[in-house]
Amino acid sequence: QVNMSVAEGEKKAVDRWSDHSYVDKIPDSLVKASDPAQSMRVRFEKMVRKAQDYICSEIEKVDGKAKFQRDSWVRQGGGGGISAVLNQGAVFEKAGVNVSVVYGTMPFEALKAATGKGVPRNHGYKEGDVIPFFACGISSVMHPWNPMAPTVHFNYRYFETEGGVWWFGGGTDITPSYVFDEDVKHFHGVYKKVCDKHDPAYFPKMKKWCDEYFFIAHRGERRGLGGIFFDDMNDKDPEEIFKFATEAAMAFPDAYVPIMQKRKDMAYTPAQKEWQQLRRGRYTEFNLIYDRGTIFGLKTGGRIESILMSLPLTARWEYDHHPAEGSWEHKSLQYMINPIDWV
Amino acid sequence: QVNMSVAEGEKKAVDRWSDHSYVDKIPDSLVKASDPAQSMRVRFEKMVRKAQDYICSEIEKVDGKAKFQRDSWVRQGGGGGISAVLNQGAVFEKAGVNVSVVYGTMPFEALKAATGKGVPRNHGYKEGDVIPFFACGISSVMHPWNPMAPTVHFNYRYFETEGGVWWFGGGTDITPSYVFDEDVKHFHGVYKKVCDKHDPAYFPKMKKWCDEYFFIAHRGERRGLGGIFFDDMNDKDPEEIFKFATEAAMAFPDAYVPIMQKRKDMAYTPAQKEWQQLRRGRYTEFNLIYDRGTIFGLKTGGRIESILMSLPLTARWEYDHHPAEGSWEHKSLQYMINPIDWV
Repeated sequence: QVNMSVAEGEKKAVDRWSDHSYVDKIPDSLVKASDPAQSMRVRFEKMVRKAQDYICSEIEKVDGKAKFQRDSWVRQGGGGGISAVLNQGAVFEKAGVNVSVVYGTMPFEALKAATGKGVPRNHGYKEGDVIPFFACGISSVMHPWNPMAPTVHFNYRYFETEGGVWWFGGGTDITPSYVFDEDVKHFHGVYKKVCDKHDPAYFPKMKKWCDEYFFIAHRGERRGLGGIFFDDMNDKDPEEIFKFATEAAMAFPDAYVPIMQKRKDMAYTPAQKEWQQLRRGRYTEFNLIYDRGTIFGLKTGGRIESILMSLPLTARWEYDHHPAEGSWEHKSLQYMINPIDWV
Repeated sequence: QVNMSVAEGEKKAVDRWSDHSYVDKIPDSLVKASDPAQSMRVRFEKMVRKAQDYICSEIEKVDGKAKFQRDSWVRQGGGGGISAVLNQGAVFEKAGVNVSVVYGTMPFEALKAATGKGVPRNHGYKEGDVIPFFACGISSVMHPWNPMAPTVHFNYRYFETEGGVWWFGGGTDITPSYVFDEDVKHFHGVYKKVCDKHDPAYFPKMKKWCDEYFFIAHRGERRGLGGIFFDDMNDKDPEEIFKFATEAAMAFPDAYVPIMQKRKDMAYTPAQKEWQQLRRGRYTEFNLIYDRGTIFGLKTGGRIESILMSLPLTARWEYDHHPAEGSWEHKSLQYMINPIDWV
């Protein structure tokens, strides 16, 4: 809301958003020193850092040229993070894998943005309240140069608020510009397998949730072809959910690398590159307007460069663009408008 | 908020957002046939349509090659619009001048987005209410190819809600990638002159408001170098405000064309084009995250392609990019961080 008091608001906002300091050495741990080794806080951080190292190393092999550069930072309010970014490599225009731990207090509005259900009502929080919390997550987006190769995103996170309230969230999803059925089947298949190992109800539920979450309402289309998505997950033994989240996070190279091997060197036309750029525009629209992770990050004093690492290197918007009926572009877009079951 | 009921919400959203029908012939008037000729509704529409024709014609002269293509549409809920878009010309990669009239009812949340102050409290509207309204406006963004030439935006609008509540809003602002002091002085000077003719208090107030409005909070910088901005303006005779809005809208070619004549054919390097693209990325961030016009449009069933016409043809995001200290890019950026008085 814009009025004459915005100037003050601005200053505060900038202070809050810019309270990250770079550190030269990557810290051994980002959680509070007093957190016990067997706590979920400590173990979740260990898991996401292991996943970060493993995934960066597998993706570097695919790229064959560029390496992930790591920036680490601590947050004055509590916590810190490590952003690993591969910039303009041979295969990827931009790939990032971020881990972060954030704790302290956050505005009620930010917590609302962090959870699908909102804050559990019986804890009595309301608008304007400030809420103690802990959050740890890994978040990744990879944008390849080749329009035949899909963009991917994943995110796994663990939250705590006061009074023993905790939940897990996460998911992995694929965004091709051009749809190769076999790729999407493979990708969904990997996550179905991980899900089925834990609960046969997971995959159908999380696949549907993913299609619903990545909906660009004003376009009437999804960002991509989904995968799995879950949030507010606290209805099982936390050990069991932790194991599931771990396996889903670690499954990423199995899901993505075989697709990249097939697509990264395919020939393509300038027109196909342009279609990819238009789809990157849609990706940007989703992330800036709807993505809960982005909104949460902006509201809780996330590190801007880490949050917006998810944006593509380049994107394009053409006025009133529609692919020709029957074209590969048109067919690919139909899958984003009307999602289907791939496995 | 994502949960299992989103699927239903989606359908409704799509229905609401897609209720525009193209019409072959541009309608003579977009307001209700029963609105009297001397009403502000009718006269404001006449004004913005005259401004649209005049500005498109002046900009076509600058481009020298491409013409504005006009799409006109009517809105099922009430009203309609004419989008004039120049696509990939000799000078402009994208330029659009839209007029629209929207009336009917809108959600309280949308009205809140439409005004800096929110709905006048004494009318007793609250969250969840549906409010009768009328809105008419002209909105324009022009993105030139040449990184030495600035992007510009303007918008002038007239609103009514129930019970005789009305207000005007608007403004014109400039967004260079590379700052030429003389250009910004000229641009601000034109609007100061228009303002001063009406009220010496206007320019200082509206210049400050503009700097505040186009603030990208998470970046701690403005989208550009401002100009004038006003909203909720209803504290003078509507005839006087109408006259001011008309003159400000019509002043656009005087403010912009001389700058374009100087910059449109300047030589530039690939690195300078890249800096422009990064600034286009910031432009996109502002429009999708903060711009009230965009949010209002999305919430009131605006025509998506007309609203998002404001996005650049192409944009770029590089991880943690900072221009070198002392460079022209750095110096230009400083003006967006710490706005100064140009006239």
